Amino acid sequence: MTQVDHTRMANAIRGLAMDAVEKAKSGHPGLPMGTADIATVLFTQFLKFDAAAPTWPDRDRFVLSAGHGSMLLYALLYLTGNKDMTLDQIRNFRQLGSKTPGHPENFETSGVETTTGPLGQGIATSVGMALAEKMLAAEFGKKVVSHHTYVLASDGDLMEGVSQEAIAMAGHWKLNKLIVMYDDNGISIDGPTSLADSVDQVKRFKSAGWAAELIDGHDPKAIAAALTRAQKSNKPSLIACKTIIGYGAPTRAGTAKAHGEALGADELKGAKEKLGISLDAFSVPDDVLKAWRAAGSRGTAAREEWESAFAELGPRKRAEFERRIRHERPAALSKALRAHKKALLDSPQNVATRKSSESAIEAIAAAMPMEFLAGSADLTGSNNNKAKSAVAFSAKTPKGRFIHYGIREHGMAAALNGIFLHGGFAPNGATFLVFTDYARPAMRLAALMGAGVVYVMTHDSIGLGEDGPTHQPVEHLSALRAIPNMRVFRPCDAVEVAECWELALNRIDGPTVLALTRQNLPQLRTNAPNDNPCAHGAYELVAAQGDAKVSLFASGSEVEIAVAAQKQLTERGIASRVVSVPSLELLLAQPADRKAAIIGNAPVKVAIEAAVRWGWDAVIGQDGDFIGMHGFGASAPAKDLFKHFGITAEAVVNAALKRLG
Amino acid sequence: MTQVDHTRMANAIRGLAMDAVEKAKSGHPGLPMGTADIATVLFTQFLKFDAAAPTWPDRDRFVLSAGHGSMLLYALLYLTGNKDMTLDQIRNFRQLGSKTPGHPENFETSGVETTTGPLGQGIATSVGMALAEKMLAAEFGKKVVSHHTYVLASDGDLMEGVSQEAIAMAGHWKLNKLIVMYDDNGISIDGPTSLADSVDQVKRFKSAGWAAELIDGHDPKAIAAALTRAQKSNKPSLIACKTIIGYGAPTRAGTAKAHGEALGADELKGAKEKLGISLDAFSVPDDVLKAWRAAGSRGTAAREEWESAFAELGPRKRAEFERRIRHERPAALSKALRAHKKALLDSPQNVATRKSSESAIEAIAAAMPMEFLAGSADLTGSNNNKAKSAVAFSAKTPKGRFIHYGIREHGMAAALNGIFLHGGFAPNGATFLVFTDYARPAMRLAALMGAGVVYVMTHDSIGLGEDGPTHQPVEHLSALRAIPNMRVFRPCDAVEVAECWELALNRIDGPTVLALTRQNLPQLRTNAPNDNPCAHGAYELVAAQGDAKVSLFASGSEVEIAVAAQKQLTERGIASRVVSVPSLELLLAQPADRKAAIIGNAPVKVAIEAAVRWGWDAVIGQDGDFIGMHGFGASAPAKDLFKHFGITAEAVVNAALKRLG
Repeated sequence: MTQVDHTRMANAIRGLAMDAVEKAKSGHPGLPMGTADIATVLFTQFLKFDAAAPTWPDRDRFVLSAGHGSMLLYALLYLTGNKDMTLDQIRNFRQLGSKTPGHPENFETSGVETTTGPLGQGIATSVGMALAEKMLAAEFGKKVVSHHTYVLASDGDLMEGVSQEAIAMAGHWKLNKLIVMYDDNGISIDGPTSLADSVDQVKRFKSAGWAAELIDGHDPKAIAAALTRAQKSNKPSLIACKTIIGYGAPTRAGTAKAHGEALGADELKGAKEKLGISLDAFSVPDDVLKAWRAAGSRGTAAREEWESAFAELGPRKRAEFERRIRHERPAALSKALRAHKKALLDSPQNVATRKSSESAIEAIAAAMPMEFLAGSADLTGSNNNKAKSAVAFSAKTPKGRFIHYGIREHGMAAALNGIFLHGGFAPNGATFLVFTDYARPAMRLAALMGAGVVYVMTHDSIGLGEDGPTHQPVEHLSALRAIPNMRVFRPCDAVEVAECWELALNRIDGPTVLALTRQNLPQLRTNAPNDNPCAHGAYELVAAQGDAKVSLFASGSEVEIAVAAQKQLTERGIASRVVSVPSLELLLAQPADRKAAIIGNAPVKVAIEAAVRWGWDAVIGQDGDFIGMHGFGASAPAKDLFKHFGITAEAVVNAALKRLG
Repeated sequence: MTQVDHTRMANAIRGLAMDAVEKAKSGHPGLPMGTADIATVLFTQFLKFDAAAPTWPDRDRFVLSAGHGSMLLYALLYLTGNKDMTLDQIRNFRQLGSKTPGHPENFETSGVETTTGPLGQGIATSVGMALAEKMLAAEFGKKVVSHHTYVLASDGDLMEGVSQEAIAMAGHWKLNKLIVMYDDNGISIDGPTSLADSVDQVKRFKSAGWAAELIDGHDPKAIAAALTRAQKSNKPSLIACKTIIGYGAPTRAGTAKAHGEALGADELKGAKEKLGISLDAFSVPDDVLKAWRAAGSRGTAAREEWESAFAELGPRKRAEFERRIRHERPAALSKALRAHKKALLDSPQNVATRKSSESAIEAIAAAMPMEFLAGSADLTGSNNNKAKSAVAFSAKTPKGRFIHYGIREHGMAAALNGIFLHGGFAPNGATFLVFTDYARPAMRLAALMGAGVVYVMTHDSIGLGEDGPTHQPVEHLSALRAIPNMRVFRPCDAVEVAECWELALNRIDGPTVLALTRQNLPQLRTNAPNDNPCAHGAYELVAAQGDAKVSLFASGSEVEIAVAAQKQLTERGIASRVVSVPSLELLLAQPADRKAAIIGNAPVKVAIEAAVRWGWDAVIGQDGDFIGMHGFGASAPAKDLFKHFGITAEAVVNAALKRLG
């Protein structure tokens, strides 16, 4: 391609971005204009993709980490010929129901690999994608799995702390097929980045084991040469591209004004004149469009070649690969869990739920050894989510199925998103429940995208004891339940643990938190019916003898307390029932009649949870009694804490008696 | 001090740490044993402090970022003679009510500068402390303010992403009095750090503008030489100290086993024999204790010198300094806000609450120009929290009172903690409400510590419009309200904004979130009584004409909708009242009778908030109607979204009519 071709093709992106933002009267023209040269080189010469087959498993992934520059991506999808991305969609940029939302949303738009916008998430998610590629390639062979993950990142992405966690992991794992192009335009919203930053990014990435270099982001030859070097590197690569934000805008180019607002009629006209683009809105010259469409079908041959290689895998391996990519669970899973539950009924486990989770994991990992992908943020021995058979993943052991994420909860959660989005694995990551705070932005994205990842969150209350209030979650259950499409399970014993694991793994349209105890708990369940009782969020664990005067609701470690309180009430001749609530928000989402039946109509309702009340009024009512935490915890042995904070069977009984008068 | 003295002094720390963990049967001996040499050099030769005056404003700060090594700090406090830290406290390590909790808690223990344990927080908080020092020194002079901030950080601290945000800020601001000693022991909980990490920390810190070097952390001369160099540097300094975790333990030294559990009788005995320490638990030889006590009073002369210099400031400046350190607000503040509210009543502002917050800030900053310290994570023009008169802080303009934090919400929130803990400022930081997710670990610590910081969180609902669901908070109000001791205000108009700012600034025992709109709102309030109505969390904004059949509860931008609905109901002859709820959790915390009076007993209760219902049942009951969000938002103009999601006066009226039958 000649220089002229390149420039006209890049200008087509610029034109569409300017026009779309102008029409929407909102959006971010600066990034698409500044990075059009980078994107043009990448999409016309390097990116392996076939616009006609946007879900081809072996496509290169392109992640626009700087999601605010969404018009870059929409323009590329339209120009390369993704059939869902019409000019009408681009005209409807940022309007209700369009496929062109303000920030790229993979669940809305074909060809968008992940949802970005919250800065740092794209680059961190891409590490999970590149990790998944490396692992799948080792398993299925390089003829079937061999693609790059390209990321376009901004200053903001690299200032966010999660980017450090991500690049440290990528460097350590030598994810050489991960290539980050940094739009080094020197401008942030407040003005020049020099207002707030003086990090040397090339040196920073090198310190994390990356190849890194600085180039002119408007020189197509330099871009191509750097990409070629990056493809050959045995390390992940950073290409810092010096660019001019809003390239072409006569007065705003190179200024913060170009970043996040429509240019306005005059500036837009001036930019188009300067760039030599037609003043007609949304117009792309035929020959330019044709060149772009050719780029969009550039990968067709590669895809067809891949189809042949895939066919050679043989029917069993093909079916396995396709099932894995679809996130369909193997038949062996439910069978294994059924057997596991039966074994629990035969010989009950009176252990911490993190330990019964470990037993469940042994059964699960045996049923899906290559796809069950666990990992921990440096708490492996405490989180108990490593199957005995699992080998640690490393650059040298890419078939390892346990990831040591380091002390990087946020990076871990973002990587889990990338692993899930890539396909091929049922990923879970572990830390203490309190540290979900660190991972929350990525967990929210999982919920928004509907990513079926699992968080194994142990040490789920003051029951962790001596580590004290910094380590004791009290508001976290509530704060997680408040996230739409987030499922939070807090099982009360080994049987519920198995049931919740089953629900979590079969939930492929959203994430699940498993909140597990540090401390031992008795096995309360004496049955394990096929219609998983946890599936409705709550169920009557122990019925009342006669008409219930009191309903006791509890989750996790406090179900034991509810059962003990029930016994004391029975001794006093008061009929009560115990409702186990492994998932409060799932109970509340049940159809009204089922919800009412579970909650029941006993005149006195008491909820027991070693956490804050926030949210429980929806079950027990404003006048219900809540036995739980009213503030932060403290450092002491767990038993002392439950007593100190009054979370005891006696407190439950007293509350009920007081109400009964 | 001779080498022998040093070793015996360091071993006193090791002995106490081993004994305390052994007695508690839990805790972390590895770090205190590994870093005892570093701490001994620092505390006996460098740290400016007077154990008899732990709150002396010009003391050097020592932050144990690796909070799990709390016994290091407790041992140092005891040995140097902090009068609250007795041997009995150390014997009660990790027990209920002791001053020696599992992780250091500044609100429990004199001499502890900040609460640590969640990794990365200490180092990030220390940046705020060093920043406050630089600013106060520029204002009050170096005779009164001139101290260092020393940090002891672990691998985990440096793996956490927030550390990158923190070091980037410190490097950019040239906080040369910040000195971080990195306990480079090569061991994390899962095993050698090489399992998960290969970052070259010296290079990494250098890339962020730090001086950085690697030394032997068991060589007191090397430690002293490095500290001397660091004190002379014009940059912040990293001293990576190669150490052996659990130094002295015969079989566990240098292994993960030394990290987080009691050594056990045999290993402990072996360690003591190897180190030449008495086998008696909690014993420190008299001469060693005497040497330590001498180190603890080493700074007495410096403190007395400081008292003289401080006296020379003159009474007005002295009083100002002391008031500021106490976090007492100036009398001018309430006067200024009173005048501001009067002006609002005289000429109402129908603007976004982020804009009315800007007006309030102008009044506030005028009343306390040097202590009102605002800043934004690169959204200054959107957050509107910069007073016109405020100059940007930089290394060259240390009297600047607006901080460009860069795109670092988490680092900003941690720095706010450090600024507050240091004293001298009323700090606030700003971003979009949705990004509180990024800052949450530091915000939780603020709540736990009772730090009076303010978060200016704009774009507080789907009302932000086109940026879409990644940028639209729906669960954040609820998730923040769930944090104990966190105050969340969502004012409905300019008058409430002023009232909430007043409450926020006067709240010096806990943090406050101000949730503010992007979109314009009418000024609904026509009065501004001296007893701030927002102080009770909610109040009747518009009374019913006659006996209310319907109570409408709303916060922020939805109060306008409630008022509109009330009008429609009135037209239909239905008496209703509007209750403005600027702080839901504060309403719920009111005494029962006041709460009942505010909530009232209208048969129909409707709550309106462009967010999830989670938490609102406590006001409206299980059967109450909620007009709000039931999932994530979408990308579209704000008006389209309110209609699309059914958050309208019509929806409120219909819900009420349906209930009334």
